[in-house]
Amino acid sequence: MPTTLERPAAGTTPAAEDALAALDPLFSRIAPALPPVQFTGSTAARYNMGAGQPDPVSLPRDELARIVSDLLHSDEGPTALMYGDAAGFLGLREALAKKLKRGEHLDVSADEILIVNGSNHGLAVVSMAFVNPGDVAIVEAPTFMGGLRPLRQLQARIEMVPLDDQGVRVDALEGQLRALRSAGTPAKLFYTIPNFHNPAGVDLALDRRKRVVELAEEFNFVILEDDAYGELRFTGTAMPSLYSLAPKGRVIRSATLSKILAAGLRIGYVTAPKEVLARLNSLKLDGGASPFTNRVAARWLEASHDRHVRHLIDIYRGKRDALIRGLEQGFAGQEDLKPAWHVPDGGFFLWLKLPPNVDPAKVAMEAGERGVGYVPGTAFFSDGSGSEYVRLAWSMLSEPDLVAAGGLVAEAIKRSLR
Amino acid sequence: MPTTLERPAAGTTPAAEDALAALDPLFSRIAPALPPVQFTGSTAARYNMGAGQPDPVSLPRDELARIVSDLLHSDEGPTALMYGDAAGFLGLREALAKKLKRGEHLDVSADEILIVNGSNHGLAVVSMAFVNPGDVAIVEAPTFMGGLRPLRQLQARIEMVPLDDQGVRVDALEGQLRALRSAGTPAKLFYTIPNFHNPAGVDLALDRRKRVVELAEEFNFVILEDDAYGELRFTGTAMPSLYSLAPKGRVIRSATLSKILAAGLRIGYVTAPKEVLARLNSLKLDGGASPFTNRVAARWLEASHDRHVRHLIDIYRGKRDALIRGLEQGFAGQEDLKPAWHVPDGGFFLWLKLPPNVDPAKVAMEAGERGVGYVPGTAFFSDGSGSEYVRLAWSMLSEPDLVAAGGLVAEAIKRSLR
Repeated sequence: MPTTLERPAAGTTPAAEDALAALDPLFSRIAPALPPVQFTGSTAARYNMGAGQPDPVSLPRDELARIVSDLLHSDEGPTALMYGDAAGFLGLREALAKKLKRGEHLDVSADEILIVNGSNHGLAVVSMAFVNPGDVAIVEAPTFMGGLRPLRQLQARIEMVPLDDQGVRVDALEGQLRALRSAGTPAKLFYTIPNFHNPAGVDLALDRRKRVVELAEEFNFVILEDDAYGELRFTGTAMPSLYSLAPKGRVIRSATLSKILAAGLRIGYVTAPKEVLARLNSLKLDGGASPFTNRVAARWLEASHDRHVRHLIDIYRGKRDALIRGLEQGFAGQEDLKPAWHVPDGGFFLWLKLPPNVDPAKVAMEAGERGVGYVPGTAFFSDGSGSEYVRLAWSMLSEPDLVAAGGLVAEAIKRSLR
Repeated sequence: MPTTLERPAAGTTPAAEDALAALDPLFSRIAPALPPVQFTGSTAARYNMGAGQPDPVSLPRDELARIVSDLLHSDEGPTALMYGDAAGFLGLREALAKKLKRGEHLDVSADEILIVNGSNHGLAVVSMAFVNPGDVAIVEAPTFMGGLRPLRQLQARIEMVPLDDQGVRVDALEGQLRALRSAGTPAKLFYTIPNFHNPAGVDLALDRRKRVVELAEEFNFVILEDDAYGELRFTGTAMPSLYSLAPKGRVIRSATLSKILAAGLRIGYVTAPKEVLARLNSLKLDGGASPFTNRVAARWLEASHDRHVRHLIDIYRGKRDALIRGLEQGFAGQEDLKPAWHVPDGGFFLWLKLPPNVDPAKVAMEAGERGVGYVPGTAFFSDGSGSEYVRLAWSMLSEPDLVAAGGLVAEAIKRSLR
């Protein structure tokens, strides 16, 4: 239901107030006054571990400036600045298809790739293509808020299935699916993050990947596979994607260049059979992805992607280790107050479970006073539970800052006994 | 209702066919297999007058290359490549506010401007904020297909009001509003293009602008004012926007940098009170507009906007005149077959009404054979009527090509007697 508009600020004329009040009944059911999704974290924090922002130091600034200059002075210059293909620049889709082939031995063609304005846009468009108001969508508990948001906007009925160290619990998923089917409200979509889960940091085990696909076949739902971080594996062996394990059409995969090239270009990509992408494309309504940023990204992918990913893996491994070192040092001799965490094999995030004798609200306050910003666990559960969790992003800070930040988090926790 | 998926191409395995078929019942009501909106026109046509593509020659390529290089090598370089404000880069919103003040004496602040990924995205987000399935939205007949598309996707009931040479017929609008109110289905939104109407090329007269605002107050609907071309006025005097004539909140205005700077950057902007923009922003779900292209555009706006607009006005005036010259020459001595048109005071489009003894389908064929691409009138009417119209965009072609293209259109029409 639409909520009442905020009252206008002091200084607004009474006539203006009336006009705004008159709008109230006109707003649609999906337009509540929620705060927008922001991905910048607490930018005021000295130690900003809030957002999944890429490392600012390793951004390929010089190379991008050179690519832009070459592009704009080439024959492609004018077309880069005009309207382009609604599905995204063909050359970028081809470069992504080649990258998937090189990196994962995955055979997809350019017309099985749709360019979107960042993976959040992709998650929104996929959700729109399947979810009517009241339809059941299953998410992991915890899950990424950018996946939850479009489901809420579409007025989905959101059901949660818990994770453990091996990823989503397929037994619980099956039970949930059975119960939903019996109740006459079968699930339509399952949103999952199989690699370096955001926020939980866990990988979905291979046998579970296979089982999720089997369940999707048996219960006829679509799997929305969110793989924003899969290329950034520090340790362990890469597992096949759900996309590669499933029959064609069963899985729609969302990925992004935000963590690899630059979040500021706003380029995500969705992989699915072309018959499915035709529907997603017709729902985009954005006049097409930017032909300019798409062409820049295509040139960069061909020239530098693989080398840059190897470089980033070293950087982010070092950052993960620095943060954990800071935490370990901070809890030395006080193991009773130490939160539990899984050491992720890649990605950006460490997910802490606070001990029961620690007060999460107090931790947030103590951390804030020390200049530490993070996202509280409640952001990652569709029902607002999860206050005993904390997500720390190691991606933005330098290694020395991460060691310090880990120590400060430990200090904040130790001062937050109930 | 979802339509059946196309059958997979030959070579697809039977298992894959089954998987795709199994998806069919899962698609949402808003995901029919429509073709996507493409803004490139018939790129194969030698004389492409299909899309509202900007003039490729005048695009500020060198300047943009320089701005990008300066930006990426400045202190702002890293932030330009990271996630930014969901509402768009503050500096761009400030630069746009200053431009509105300089150009129109309009007082809006940066927090009354929301950056979107092109004006189509803006039109979609505004429509989402007001239209529930079945709600009534009024559009002009003809109107821009990019405004129709989101209304269709949202399953609005779309009503049309005719135009004449002075813009929308306010008497017909009032009659429509009365009838809708009596029927218990009052209109929620009126979508209008007051300057150099796309496709009709007419301006909305000042007394009608005032009347539209009065009607919105009386019947309590929102006006969505689409002003993509207003800065490109060749002749006549600029009239106040509906936004400036109405009480705060009554009008939401959509505009774009696509026609002035570069369509390929995908930057549009919506102007409305901040209380309204908060709702639009929460509906965007794109992870925020690109901090990179936003910063490039902000620097360009401050440095070059006003001078460049003056340059573009000269260019597009010359193009308009060249196309009309070609048409006039082509019909010399055969006035009986000459279509009717209004000479627009600005913008990109000439809207031809074919004489009754001419067969529109034949014209399209004859024009196609001569390498001429345009958009048939039916694209601009929500009910698919309008086959007696043709929209020609003069924006892309050179003056000599436009003279030639006008002649070829005349030739195609003259050979298309019923």
